[in-house]
Amino acid sequence: MNHFVSMQQLSEYELLQLVKKADGISKSGMKPLKEQYFGANLFYEPSTRTKMSFIVAQKKLGIEVLDFMSDQSSVKKGESLYDTARTFESIGASFIVIRHPAENVAKQLADQLSIPVINAGDGTGEHPTQSLLDLVTIYQEFQRLSGLKIAIVGDVKHSRVARSNAIALNKLGANVVLCSMDDWKDESLPFPYLSIDEAVETCDVVMLLRIQHERHDQKTLMHTSSYLKEYGLTLEREKKMKDHAIIMHPAPVNRGVEIDSALVECEKSRIFKQMKNGVAARMAVISSLLEQGGKYNENHFNKRNAIIGQ
Amino acid sequence: MNHFVSMQQLSEYELLQLVKKADGISKSGMKPLKEQYFGANLFYEPSTRTKMSFIVAQKKLGIEVLDFMSDQSSVKKGESLYDTARTFESIGASFIVIRHPAENVAKQLADQLSIPVINAGDGTGEHPTQSLLDLVTIYQEFQRLSGLKIAIVGDVKHSRVARSNAIALNKLGANVVLCSMDDWKDESLPFPYLSIDEAVETCDVVMLLRIQHERHDQKTLMHTSSYLKEYGLTLEREKKMKDHAIIMHPAPVNRGVEIDSALVECEKSRIFKQMKNGVAARMAVISSLLEQGGKYNENHFNKRNAIIGQ
Amino acid sequence: MNHFVSMQQLSEYELLQLVKKADGISKSGMKPLKEQYFGANLFYEPSTRTKMSFIVAQKKLGIEVLDFMSDQSSVKKGESLYDTARTFESIGASFIVIRHPAENVAKQLADQLSIPVINAGDGTGEHPTQSLLDLVTIYQEFQRLSGLKIAIVGDVKHSRVARSNAIALNKLGANVVLCSMDDWKDESLPFPYLSIDEAVETCDVVMLLRIQHERHDQKTLMHTSSYLKEYGLTLEREKKMKDHAIIMHPAPVNRGVEIDSALVECEKSRIFKQMKNGVAARMAVISSLLEQGGKYNENHFNKRNAIIGQ
Repeated sequence: MNHFVSMQQLSEYELLQLVKKADGISKSGMKPLKEQYFGANLFYEPSTRTKMSFIVAQKKLGIEVLDFMSDQSSVKKGESLYDTARTFESIGASFIVIRHPAENVAKQLADQLSIPVINAGDGTGEHPTQSLLDLVTIYQEFQRLSGLKIAIVGDVKHSRVARSNAIALNKLGANVVLCSMDDWKDESLPFPYLSIDEAVETCDVVMLLRIQHERHDQKTLMHTSSYLKEYGLTLEREKKMKDHAIIMHPAPVNRGVEIDSALVECEKSRIFKQMKNGVAARMAVISSLLEQGGKYNENHFNKRNAIIGQ
Repeated sequence: MNHFVSMQQLSEYELLQLVKKADGISKSGMKPLKEQYFGANLFYEPSTRTKMSFIVAQKKLGIEVLDFMSDQSSVKKGESLYDTARTFESIGASFIVIRHPAENVAKQLADQLSIPVINAGDGTGEHPTQSLLDLVTIYQEFQRLSGLKIAIVGDVKHSRVARSNAIALNKLGANVVLCSMDDWKDESLPFPYLSIDEAVETCDVVMLLRIQHERHDQKTLMHTSSYLKEYGLTLEREKKMKDHAIIMHPAPVNRGVEIDSALVECEKSRIFKQMKNGVAARMAVISSLLEQGGKYNENHFNKRNAIIGQ
Repeated sequence: MNHFVSMQQLSEYELLQLVKKADGISKSGMKPLKEQYFGANLFYEPSTRTKMSFIVAQKKLGIEVLDFMSDQSSVKKGESLYDTARTFESIGASFIVIRHPAENVAKQLADQLSIPVINAGDGTGEHPTQSLLDLVTIYQEFQRLSGLKIAIVGDVKHSRVARSNAIALNKLGANVVLCSMDDWKDESLPFPYLSIDEAVETCDVVMLLRIQHERHDQKTLMHTSSYLKEYGLTLEREKKMKDHAIIMHPAPVNRGVEIDSALVECEKSRIFKQMKNGVAARMAVISSLLEQGGKYNENHFNKRNAIIGQ
């Protein structure tokens, strides 16, 4: 693992190793790394949870944090993402964390740079560290992932979290089902769609998605109160969940839309535990990448020039 | 003291202890704390002095600083302050420093979170760490607070600094007088109003307030030059101050409005000394709160749900 | 050297010492300083490279970084630069790094503060740390600066990099030539103008400048494609350069305008090496200034009041 840009790139074995490492860190912590490293955090979209938990993860590992604000940078002067990333590489960044509105950006950067790239969410593409923290949270609950029935519910089409989780959970042997209104179905994912009522009654995990208002046309929006009633997790539906079943949501939650506000911190909810696990998951990813330092392709400069030098 | 949100909540004894602790830190420094702590700094209003001195205070105590920018965060996606604060709590923040345009926000958060909350200014409510640094500055000058005659001068009505200081100084036995044009009087404070000329001639401390342009309607504004002459500290008035009397201002100063620009760094001015003391005052508050870690109400989760879960 | 605001202020000896110190740091690193220092980074213009490499330099020296965002600060409430800088001085900043759109601002601050001031670019004035990293890069290539023929090419008139480099290189015995379209010539610099073709064929260093779109009137802009052909470094011109000659650019590069995009990372290019050297250059400047701590003029308070107290 030279980069961490997609759940698709990882084998079942690598995935399980990361889940177990993150679980261990969440329980016992991890000593700071001995060398001085610099983490470059390039966030081109707003973020609280993901950005702050990447920063806490780096500080816990003893890594120096470089916090890039695109609106106060040379991006204002028209600098490209590639040139910005190469700048961080040149001034000593040990790895790059990138969130960007365009799909596939992390993968492209990974092909061009000699330092590890971590995808912190790329458009409607993937969000693999969010997926990892979700896997850890489920693993801590059931001590396994294989054989569990897990519903991914809501705005599947616009959700990078849905995509990363469906891929990873399926790879680990879980039984993934989807649940969505027609406009938001993603037919490229090879999993069956259930009604919300069937999903809540039969699944071990009800994983709600945030409605991505910022990625929608106006016309797909509906009144939020009717959304909750028709497609969301109401108080009534929660009562029909299995005894041991849990509720998850990547947050920020649209309270009263995807889920009744009173359920956000109910007994079955793992929403804030997910956030807590986000720090351990990111520590696991970063430390795994840095432990492999020096193994990168020495031909990357030539490869890069072939790609961008035109 | 589980939180630090208001001067009203503190006893005379607690106040004096904090003043003396901050005075000691300003003279001899303080060793970094041994554990790793994370300070979450949530500033929803512009700030230089308060924010930067909180950050310096944390770094001097060896605390890792989390710097939250509301405009680059999930607040953009509609996330509430409560959910944002709970996120920081979940990812490992040891305490929260909050500045917000709405009164009473710090108090509300303190009721909802299991980690200490520090009020860094809430609307026209309170600004207790500013008050503490003012107390320390006066104490360093006179070795006491009790019995001093202290004028709070200017935009009393819109000033959280005025409110916190009037409460705290009165509690510590000082003789508080106010001084303001009619529109800016706050009749809820039980202290007499003097003319600016009587105030400067009779007081030990002339504590000027910043005109809070950003909290005014247009019509209460007047020409700034006439304000200085009628209500501000002019060169002439400064000459009539007692020999040992001092000038204070929380800054940023509107030079030539509340005070003649030439007086900002004059011999009687303690304006930049106040800023210096701000670091020590915040170190005193933060270290006092962290030393009490673990004593918080274990029922806070239930309490919280009762409050916000509807 | 009490401040670092202009290449003009330094003697040939001081310049060479700094170049050699930075070269040494770039090769062998430098141990963190023993005392706790605070660096205040005041950037009033967008910046990636300069700001981030100042921050990396400070962190490598073990200095605590204070990152000032003017748009989230009391600048919003009308606070002057002087009062902002004095605030940082009061709360414990050990030095100030300032980037500002107005010429001469760093020099003015240096006259007013008791802590070292470092100019990180002031309008069309100077950019001395950029110049230092350029000197280091040339020195590493040729083991000398004296006697080299160096072309500074492009938007000379609006470039603080051009000014600082022309001054410094001339002081160190290099043969400086300029190269620019008529509108962008700066007649105040006492160096000859060559055509771009003569320059690339005869110089040891071809130092391109960024077109400062943000400092131009609309009418001086031309079609970027024709600019490259007439005044920029094309693939054809690069082939005519001397074998040992190198290409430099302070970046961000306008790819396809000042230089063909394919040349940015070609064999002759030192563009990303310049960035790398930026960290070492800034470590050299900061550590040199801090090693001189305590030697400042004790009369600065009086001097300051004479300057600003009106």
